[in-house]
Amino acid sequence: MKHAVTFELKKKDARTKARRGCVHTPHGSFETPVFMPVGTQATVKAMKPEDVARLGSEGANIILSNTYHLYLRPGHELIKKAGGLHKFMNWKGAILTDSGGFQVFSLGKMRKITEEGVRFQSYIDGSYHMFTPEKSMEVQEALGSDIMMAFDECAAYPSERKYVEDSLELTTRWLKRCKEYHKNVEEQSLFGIMQGGCFKDLRKRSAEQIVELDLPGYAIGGLSVGEPKELMYEVLDDCVDYLPSDRPRYLMGVGSPDCLFEGVERGIDMFDCVLPTRVARHGLAFTSHGKVNIKNAKNAEDFGPLDPECDCYVCRNYSRAYLRSIFMNDEILSSMLLSEHNLHFLVSTMEKIRKAIDEDRFLEYKKEFYDKYGQF
Amino acid sequence: MKHAVTFELKKKDARTKARRGCVHTPHGSFETPVFMPVGTQATVKAMKPEDVARLGSEGANIILSNTYHLYLRPGHELIKKAGGLHKFMNWKGAILTDSGGFQVFSLGKMRKITEEGVRFQSYIDGSYHMFTPEKSMEVQEALGSDIMMAFDECAAYPSERKYVEDSLELTTRWLKRCKEYHKNVEEQSLFGIMQGGCFKDLRKRSAEQIVELDLPGYAIGGLSVGEPKELMYEVLDDCVDYLPSDRPRYLMGVGSPDCLFEGVERGIDMFDCVLPTRVARHGLAFTSHGKVNIKNAKNAEDFGPLDPECDCYVCRNYSRAYLRSIFMNDEILSSMLLSEHNLHFLVSTMEKIRKAIDEDRFLEYKKEFYDKYGQF
Repeated sequence: MKHAVTFELKKKDARTKARRGCVHTPHGSFETPVFMPVGTQATVKAMKPEDVARLGSEGANIILSNTYHLYLRPGHELIKKAGGLHKFMNWKGAILTDSGGFQVFSLGKMRKITEEGVRFQSYIDGSYHMFTPEKSMEVQEALGSDIMMAFDECAAYPSERKYVEDSLELTTRWLKRCKEYHKNVEEQSLFGIMQGGCFKDLRKRSAEQIVELDLPGYAIGGLSVGEPKELMYEVLDDCVDYLPSDRPRYLMGVGSPDCLFEGVERGIDMFDCVLPTRVARHGLAFTSHGKVNIKNAKNAEDFGPLDPECDCYVCRNYSRAYLRSIFMNDEILSSMLLSEHNLHFLVSTMEKIRKAIDEDRFLEYKKEFYDKYGQF
Repeated sequence: MKHAVTFELKKKDARTKARRGCVHTPHGSFETPVFMPVGTQATVKAMKPEDVARLGSEGANIILSNTYHLYLRPGHELIKKAGGLHKFMNWKGAILTDSGGFQVFSLGKMRKITEEGVRFQSYIDGSYHMFTPEKSMEVQEALGSDIMMAFDECAAYPSERKYVEDSLELTTRWLKRCKEYHKNVEEQSLFGIMQGGCFKDLRKRSAEQIVELDLPGYAIGGLSVGEPKELMYEVLDDCVDYLPSDRPRYLMGVGSPDCLFEGVERGIDMFDCVLPTRVARHGLAFTSHGKVNIKNAKNAEDFGPLDPECDCYVCRNYSRAYLRSIFMNDEILSSMLLSEHNLHFLVSTMEKIRKAIDEDRFLEYKKEFYDKYGQF
């Protein structure tokens, strides 16, 4: 089957499962492994889209946006009328939309799961809504994203084996319904999601079921949901082997600096995470030498940059003393600058990872990064 | 006496007191009449300085910053150590600092005025501080602004004649102390402030006293403090005549669109106001056709720009529907975009006013603007 989104595998690392590739979409291509900034409500928080497109030295060429949030406000029909999400939010690169599944499952008592789908209450006005695989596809079609994610159930951690097993089977049935709906969608590609919790045999079963559907990309869901990092890495070690090497692999909701390296080493191509912009709004920055809490008193008279090894707009133009001052004064510019720096840090770290793989020194670069970063 | 800041009078309007000029400072020149964006706490709220410098078609070339706020946090000594306010906040254009007077007088019961100066309590931690003319100069010197404002007393409206009279005399005595301190300050220029409330003869007396000191610029203080607009215009009508035509005239704290036109018509060269950025954060925009409340339901499905006649970044790239959506979602980008649009609107309206004066059609342009804008 011909897909609107295609993957070009460029190189495999000799010593690890790390690999270099490129994903082509109707809104441009992006090199992998890639970190995707998150634009939950049709904006990467506190950033102009042009500044997102300039992150790192190659720019962020794909962002993620959230189906659940956009469905509730302003509504997918409105965005469709506006000409789609790209035009609505003034973003010229590629967009991946999640299915809304993760958000509705996170609602706890405010949602109910059945074979049909999930009934849930709006956090805005308490009104009732129903997400089904078909509804999620319909919403994502209206948004016009380049990559649509299948509607899946993400089991909480920890969950009983029986629950996880039923859940992954439900996820597969829902994926088939998504694929059926997607038949008539030409310009957007559907990625499937593997579930199975931390049970390796269930991961394998889930993978076999979804890979059979010949989709242009596969995601690993249900990780980084509360389990210890070591367990996540252990599951990941296996997971990737069940997925075809000619399709991109996306580890959902993961993006702390160490997870990027560990994920890449295990064969992951795509990552996303709200962390860099969320912690930025609380005054926390990622730097080459570890995390910096800008409100720390020792930054008050530090006239040097946030990260002396960083060449981003923020590090070139502002001191820690200034960043601390505007943070303490609750200035909006504080969120703007720290978000830009943090996203730049992850995007450019990923660029360096790509370069390292190209030059057969991924493990060396990883060690160098870890030694300097210190504790994660 | 040679001043670091000089005024070049370029043209006088034949039918009104409007005039064109240019002010030269150690950090570049700016054409007058001018609207100065306000950067209270060393940032024009929700704007990167580069974007401030790109406002309108000529850019904003001077901003105002607040001595009182910067003195309290992060402290003027810290900013001095950072290399001055320009470097600290990454602003390459000119800076005017107020004296802190207006802010400390606004504190009501939290301050006490004596001949020596004003004792006040910090809004941050309740600690006691004393601002005197010398202290205000010292703080402004540490900040390194291009234009320093004299420490004055701004009498509230309404005030008894006797209070206003004593107050203007005190302001003059303080101005002399400011000038005495300023003797040793080379790279910064001191502007005096006229007071006198709404009493025309007191305005005249104040003007005579301060003009005698031969300062490079004069401000009109104590207006737009609660009196009806008509009364403000009436006082202004007189005020300007008492000031020398070869020095810039600055109407403090005034900057709504109608006030810009009325001020220019009465011979004012410089304006500042927090209004454009403050109302932006509440979802209010200035447009050629009047004020727009972005949260108004009729904007929900309006896919046209905020202002069809505006060529700013926001109007070129976003719809009202999008702006409403991010405002309703409390997104930081909402404050960023509406602040940029509002500042652009005032800065570019001022550019059009300058052009109209150059082309001898100031009154025609004013009528055209008013007719389209509707109610102020």
